[in-house]
Amino acid sequence: MSLISRIRRVLVGPPIATKHAHHERLPKIFGLPVFASDALSSVAYATEEVLLVLALAGAAALYLLMPVSYALGALMLIVGFSYYQTIHAYPKGGGTYLVSTENLGSWPGRVAGAALLIDYVLTVAVSISSGTAAIYSAFPQLQPYKVLIAVAAVTVIGLVNLRGARESGIVFALPTYTFVFCVLMVVGAAILRSFSEPSHAPPAKLPTQPEDHLWLIGPMLVLRAFAASCTALTGTEAIADGVQAFRPPEAKNAGQTLFMMIALMLTMFLGISWTAHYYGIVPMSTSQPGYMTVLAQMGAKLYGEGSWFFYLLQGATALILFLAANTAFADFPRLSSFIARDKFLPRQLMNVGDRLVFQNGIILLALVAILLLVLYHADTHSLIPLYALGVFISFTLSQAGMTIKWIREGVHDYRMFISGFGALVTFSVAIILLVTKFEEGAWMVTVAIGGLLFLFAKIRKYYDFLQREFEVSPQDRIEPVRTTALLLVPRLHKGTLKAIAYSQSLTDDCRALHVTLDPTSAEEIKREWDRLGVDMPLVILESPYRSLIEPVLEYIDQAIEDDPEAMITVIVPQGVPPKWYQALLHSNVAALLKLALGSRRNVVITNVRYFLS
Amino acid sequence: MSLISRIRRVLVGPPIATKHAHHERLPKIFGLPVFASDALSSVAYATEEVLLVLALAGAAALYLLMPVSYALGALMLIVGFSYYQTIHAYPKGGGTYLVSTENLGSWPGRVAGAALLIDYVLTVAVSISSGTAAIYSAFPQLQPYKVLIAVAAVTVIGLVNLRGARESGIVFALPTYTFVFCVLMVVGAAILRSFSEPSHAPPAKLPTQPEDHLWLIGPMLVLRAFAASCTALTGTEAIADGVQAFRPPEAKNAGQTLFMMIALMLTMFLGISWTAHYYGIVPMSTSQPGYMTVLAQMGAKLYGEGSWFFYLLQGATALILFLAANTAFADFPRLSSFIARDKFLPRQLMNVGDRLVFQNGIILLALVAILLLVLYHADTHSLIPLYALGVFISFTLSQAGMTIKWIREGVHDYRMFISGFGALVTFSVAIILLVTKFEEGAWMVTVAIGGLLFLFAKIRKYYDFLQREFEVSPQDRIEPVRTTALLLVPRLHKGTLKAIAYSQSLTDDCRALHVTLDPTSAEEIKREWDRLGVDMPLVILESPYRSLIEPVLEYIDQAIEDDPEAMITVIVPQGVPPKWYQALLHSNVAALLKLALGSRRNVVITNVRYFLS
Repeated sequence: MSLISRIRRVLVGPPIATKHAHHERLPKIFGLPVFASDALSSVAYATEEVLLVLALAGAAALYLLMPVSYALGALMLIVGFSYYQTIHAYPKGGGTYLVSTENLGSWPGRVAGAALLIDYVLTVAVSISSGTAAIYSAFPQLQPYKVLIAVAAVTVIGLVNLRGARESGIVFALPTYTFVFCVLMVVGAAILRSFSEPSHAPPAKLPTQPEDHLWLIGPMLVLRAFAASCTALTGTEAIADGVQAFRPPEAKNAGQTLFMMIALMLTMFLGISWTAHYYGIVPMSTSQPGYMTVLAQMGAKLYGEGSWFFYLLQGATALILFLAANTAFADFPRLSSFIARDKFLPRQLMNVGDRLVFQNGIILLALVAILLLVLYHADTHSLIPLYALGVFISFTLSQAGMTIKWIREGVHDYRMFISGFGALVTFSVAIILLVTKFEEGAWMVTVAIGGLLFLFAKIRKYYDFLQREFEVSPQDRIEPVRTTALLLVPRLHKGTLKAIAYSQSLTDDCRALHVTLDPTSAEEIKREWDRLGVDMPLVILESPYRSLIEPVLEYIDQAIEDDPEAMITVIVPQGVPPKWYQALLHSNVAALLKLALGSRRNVVITNVRYFLS
Repeated sequence: MSLISRIRRVLVGPPIATKHAHHERLPKIFGLPVFASDALSSVAYATEEVLLVLALAGAAALYLLMPVSYALGALMLIVGFSYYQTIHAYPKGGGTYLVSTENLGSWPGRVAGAALLIDYVLTVAVSISSGTAAIYSAFPQLQPYKVLIAVAAVTVIGLVNLRGARESGIVFALPTYTFVFCVLMVVGAAILRSFSEPSHAPPAKLPTQPEDHLWLIGPMLVLRAFAASCTALTGTEAIADGVQAFRPPEAKNAGQTLFMMIALMLTMFLGISWTAHYYGIVPMSTSQPGYMTVLAQMGAKLYGEGSWFFYLLQGATALILFLAANTAFADFPRLSSFIARDKFLPRQLMNVGDRLVFQNGIILLALVAILLLVLYHADTHSLIPLYALGVFISFTLSQAGMTIKWIREGVHDYRMFISGFGALVTFSVAIILLVTKFEEGAWMVTVAIGGLLFLFAKIRKYYDFLQREFEVSPQDRIEPVRTTALLLVPRLHKGTLKAIAYSQSLTDDCRALHVTLDPTSAEEIKREWDRLGVDMPLVILESPYRSLIEPVLEYIDQAIEDDPEAMITVIVPQGVPPKWYQALLHSNVAALLKLALGSRRNVVITNVRYFLS
């Protein structure tokens, strides 16, 4: 244990006292990177995902990139306005789970909670996969180790969060602003160069176009491309969740930060899409040798593949994506602690560890995310079909909740209209996501949400049952009990002497039990007993089947029958060896007995340990 | 637990009382199959292994099969005579471990024990692999599942042994005599046909002959081929181990059975070798499609591949090989119980289970054998290099022990000479095995024996230490102790009430401990405490680091310091949910506390369970 403690201290740091819990208030300049890294980082892969859908339908379909991007831009504005309102309506923090539960009721709140939990896991998996792709776009020799890199990244981020990330403002600011700077430099260079070389090259080559995908051309293709783009919106809700982290006036500052974020997302996303469109950049398959992300291709095309800017771009992309994963490590444990507080998840998720973080939630998220990364080989494109559906379900419920709130409060002006419209649009998008991605993976998300809801209900039911069972009523009194001590004596040794003394100190009703396999051992122990003058009856139990447990069980059952009110305390002397592994050489009767006595009431099993020097 | 018990009952059967332990005395007709199946079954693969060695040196080397076989025949007779003497000198059973320990001392005995333990494991692995090969020689479509079949066979044999195989005589007789009959039919047919077609075909084709094996031609090749043949002798010691299982006069009957066995082994082994030689049968590589063992090839050649005799031969071969594995399942647990009785192995191996078998030894053997089968893909030929060395080490020590015994007893006649000669010959063979198979695997056996000897010494040292530590000296008295009870009260519920009453029944020195994370919960519990009028001081412990464990540990440490002589009993109320998995929803403070209190002396931790209906 002390070794475990020491390792833990090195990895996670010494405990932090509750009184040191501080609520760092962020100026906008830090608030933006802390809350927006998730949303902003999505632009690193969103355009690529749209292109991958369009490319399936052939080169002719690629012209659809810009219309789809404009549609997503419009959606960004709608979602942005909706959340701007939420921030002002919930200046204490308008998390989706809270808003939905408060305005729509427990069930919709639970659906939002389940959808968000799943999406936080996917945020980690997708962001880490995509960040890893940014790394091996710059260093192709690392591609074979992508799963390893991804798992290591999750582990490091998990440990950082277990330590409690308190200097987050500065840590987030640098990579986030570098990323924004780099993307704007790419887009800016693309625009500048477009003046000097007005005609752009047509797409050079396309990934394979299997015939069975030809049916996709048409409205379905557009919808699928649009669905793929929606991943860019994940993380938009973050600022509304964390209004209280801003300096006062909180709502005003948070609202301004939200608009700053939406503006940046719009610019970056449309800029990247336009650049891809104008320069005819085609996404590569990760199985292609020398794979590069679309963003990396742009950097390589405009600044040169070996240039320092190219490496800066890839580094900043990887970092902001890892920070996006880090955001989920703050959100998931907090949300699961809220849900656990409402008794829908195990109460261990509410435990604030000695580093002032929800350690169980952090560990749970890391484990599930690692599992996903291993199962999906840390491949962004395979994970994307699972992504975004949960986000849009929670958007819908959050905005629907806001709409109901306005109606209840008698607010029938533009605010109600914006929330209602937002709910309608995000609901439509959720339906589009569900339909277009159903076969590819959205069905799993649906099943997972259903499974979580079932689990929530079961857990709540159990905690309610626990409360009823445990509740002390005014009639309840403490009834005195009698205790009978039964001391197991396999052999008479020093540990036994100590256990005898201990048993006698507990109660006058002590009996020693010796299970005998052959009569000579019984005689021997009787002699010893007499010689020591032990003031305790010694009961010899025959064991016709050579079990050391069965005769004791039978004796205990008889004792319970004789005196159903008494508490039977079974005392088992146990030698504790100097080294833990030496315990393998002891026959562990106590553990076996504990298992066997599992369901017997009024029985208490006690180990009296004797330490071998 | 009751579910586990029920499954156990179905698989292993109801308990058998000690008084029903009977020592079935076998007539010779049953004694032969019971004790000889291991030795006789070896002829199923011995010739093939010799041919595989010779074939490496090319077709020209195959003529060496008969000389090597005659040498092995001579060795069989020498070993047979040696053990005949052991039987008469130890009519109570002359196991190698016993004979070596008694005559040569503890260390040689331990070496023999370690060597034999390893060889019993290998007997299971080799016999099962070879039996599986007999099955897929008849049904080639089963070859891909050979590891699965082998593991299933070990599992079934393990379960049969856990039940206790009491009707062994009849069960063994049928396959053993069928196998003997089939082999004699093959050899007989071969001899008969040799008269009608006097010239035999030269070997049709040979396995690959890599050039780097050409150095093998010469004396080394002969030694290697001889070493390969020695596997035929494994199991010869079985009758000497089990003299007491024969009807009186035990030694006479056992001795006659031994000679019967040696005669059969000689006839069958030489017969198979001659047939292979005469008909130019060449061993196949298991990776060849349509692989057949050498014995199966003979059956197919002489009786036709689809004939009922062919299937009978393969079935009997598989069965006798599985029975050989079964023999190890009787020998290994018995030997390990002897070694455990001498305190060189964990005492759990001495436990006779409720089915009157050494269940832990059976389970241990099954697990290690399955591990070997999986690692070596149930391939007989890869396992063979590990085999036989242990057997010949134990032969040598057993015969050396007999020689010393004769010398000590002043017997200087032919008996001393036979034992001495046997020891010398088997020692030479052991050296040949070690040298010729060293690189291929004998080094592992050497390391394993060394490792076991180290383990034996460590275990013995620990048990000796335990005895010294535990020993009650005449001065030892039972010193009365005081008990302080500390009751943990996280919340006040019905389980707590029960625990309060229990604590009060134990000692007058009771204190309740409540760890508080916030002051309101402390106030609340104090009010409840007063309302119930609990006659026990309530200690509120602050937890600046939010740990529920640390403050309790500190309090306990203080209590130990205040009164180093008292026993501190920590009582933890624990709710027991109706279903075991619901315990996941409880925070298990007791288990954490137990871990944390690990090394504190004079502390006893007690769970008072409250059953939720």
